[in-house]
Amino acid sequence: MTTDYNQLAEKLHRDNGGKLATDLRHKGEVTRHELSAYYTPGVGHVSSLIAKDPSRLREFTWTRNLVAVISDGSAVLGLGNIGPEASLPVMEGKALLFKYFADLDSVPIVLDCKSTEEVIETIQRIAPSFGAINLEDFAAPQCFEIESRLRETLSIPVFHDDQHGTAIVVLAALINACKVTGKDLGSLTIVIAGIGAAGTAIARLIKEYAPGVQIVGTGRSGALTLADASLNAVKRSLLEEGILEDVSLEGQSTADLKEVMCDADVFIGVSAPGLVDADMVRSMAPDPIVMALSNPIPEIYPDEAAAAGAAVICTGRSDFPNQVNNALAFPGIFRGALDHKVSQITEDHKMLAAKALADFVKDPTAEKVIPSIFDEGLAQAVAKVIT
Amino acid sequence: MTTDYNQLAEKLHRDNGGKLATDLRHKGEVTRHELSAYYTPGVGHVSSLIAKDPSRLREFTWTRNLVAVISDGSAVLGLGNIGPEASLPVMEGKALLFKYFADLDSVPIVLDCKSTEEVIETIQRIAPSFGAINLEDFAAPQCFEIESRLRETLSIPVFHDDQHGTAIVVLAALINACKVTGKDLGSLTIVIAGIGAAGTAIARLIKEYAPGVQIVGTGRSGALTLADASLNAVKRSLLEEGILEDVSLEGQSTADLKEVMCDADVFIGVSAPGLVDADMVRSMAPDPIVMALSNPIPEIYPDEAAAAGAAVICTGRSDFPNQVNNALAFPGIFRGALDHKVSQITEDHKMLAAKALADFVKDPTAEKVIPSIFDEGLAQAVAKVIT
Repeated sequence: MTTDYNQLAEKLHRDNGGKLATDLRHKGEVTRHELSAYYTPGVGHVSSLIAKDPSRLREFTWTRNLVAVISDGSAVLGLGNIGPEASLPVMEGKALLFKYFADLDSVPIVLDCKSTEEVIETIQRIAPSFGAINLEDFAAPQCFEIESRLRETLSIPVFHDDQHGTAIVVLAALINACKVTGKDLGSLTIVIAGIGAAGTAIARLIKEYAPGVQIVGTGRSGALTLADASLNAVKRSLLEEGILEDVSLEGQSTADLKEVMCDADVFIGVSAPGLVDADMVRSMAPDPIVMALSNPIPEIYPDEAAAAGAAVICTGRSDFPNQVNNALAFPGIFRGALDHKVSQITEDHKMLAAKALADFVKDPTAEKVIPSIFDEGLAQAVAKVIT
Repeated sequence: MTTDYNQLAEKLHRDNGGKLATDLRHKGEVTRHELSAYYTPGVGHVSSLIAKDPSRLREFTWTRNLVAVISDGSAVLGLGNIGPEASLPVMEGKALLFKYFADLDSVPIVLDCKSTEEVIETIQRIAPSFGAINLEDFAAPQCFEIESRLRETLSIPVFHDDQHGTAIVVLAALINACKVTGKDLGSLTIVIAGIGAAGTAIARLIKEYAPGVQIVGTGRSGALTLADASLNAVKRSLLEEGILEDVSLEGQSTADLKEVMCDADVFIGVSAPGLVDADMVRSMAPDPIVMALSNPIPEIYPDEAAAAGAAVICTGRSDFPNQVNNALAFPGIFRGALDHKVSQITEDHKMLAAKALADFVKDPTAEKVIPSIFDEGLAQAVAKVIT
């Protein structure tokens, strides 16, 4: 099936010459008189107005409706660090989604940078060109510093979608999965496999939304614990702040995934194909919620998870029910941020967006805990709460 | 009249929300299946192909048809150093011209940079995002180093339009003005007032095209001469290379504009309003060619120059005949460079473009030595020679 998409992708990209074009807001012929207003001499007057009051930039330029999709190509899809050129089709694809789902203008920018510092300073320097910045496919843990430094220094929204877009949709799914299963979201025990960009943001957002949950994070060497001296600062901080539980066991440094999944209410995998087996699902608390988001091959396939008793199952794939897809969130998030002149996307915004996504599903069922990206009015429903 | 344009500019910019938008190359609805080819999972295959062979970037992305219009806002129109934000409407306007006259996609990028080095490295880092780069409104002399360093290090066309676009159109006008006046282009004496970005490029291109010409450059303190220790390196080089004549006079360090215009065949002003009076035109050789390109107020108004005997008169304004407008050149230059996969715009390209512009006017007259930007097929005629 992937091969199918591959051939179609190659053909569509080649025949169309990529996916994006620019267009004029002016409809029809531009007269000589209008040209003298759009360009010299008239444009000089508009520039002077902005020079006098830079806050009027949005009033007179396309930045009002413009999102930059920026990547350095360091963590692209499942392909890894493929560099700026090879990442461009993905960023152009994201720009297509912005246009198609939220009528936002969007420009893909790929960066040939050698360090985190270079990435940060380059984005700072080009930022006046845009109305908002969507960071995409930056490797962890660098992505955390890049985003936080840019948020501190820029006056326009900066949003690393691989972190927060995923976290918002996962929280939305969790809210409705609890409705479906009758579980109390406030006292769930949750295992997150894979504490990278997405896993970190998921943990933080769920804990912010429901401080009573207990979350254990696991990596390649098992459950994260402060006893592990090799943990990076970002993961260490999750434990120190109490976002993640430290479950180091007596006599051994780490519990493995199998051990921590036992009696858990929720499994969230943003990790690797096939990491979970049926026995591990069977060992969970009754009516477990399984989000196997590794893509395209999930941690466990839905049929196998269902057979093992999973009550609600989500994946990252469009060919199974409950696709956890960032495109449910980011078009509306940015649409709202620009429409309502929001200068940063806050934790509150993310929780409101998750709630809006959950509420969008009128009668949640096990097969439908989150909307489809094709649902009419979805981006607008999310945009409405980003104020 | 400028006030007219100002009001219209303010209204059009505000009502339309700027001038540019992005659009999808795909026409009509995007099916779920096509979406899986434009974005994940299909797009990963296209990215892999580019990762294997970066030269295929053009084949699969919009870079095939994409020009970045980049500025740091340091020398914008007659407004000077107004910074990145205030310069954005001008860059967006230029992007509009690219689309309208040559169907090129174009993205305005404004840079918040503090030094020439920052400008160069920032453009190098974002360059993989684009098919070609139009540098715009960078102050002289920094613009020379920025352009030459980028040309050396990037594999895509880099073209500072304020230099070369102007030079190409001036050369085109000169070719036809010589036809009209019967002057021999190869042995003209020329005065260029204002040796900044445009003046430097004009001098170099004319001298390259017709090595027998004699060109004197003037600045605020008169004719450029090596005797002036305060000359910057770029101007010094023009004299040392013999592009400009050194006309220092015995006993005084510099000749003034009035003195050097005496008996000159051609005056080219890229300097300041009202710099030239009728007597100075009268002192020129018979049938003088006067290009008073200071904009919007020329060095001398056409009616006054004509009364003083000027045989051919050009200005930068659309409300007089013979408007020397960069938009005659840059749309076709970039259209040709991208269509023919040209990696740099060379001196030969510029001369060919000037020739193509001159030839486009079938029967040159004093009132029409260059085409109008609205002439059908103009960009294509220029594009054809950029191979």
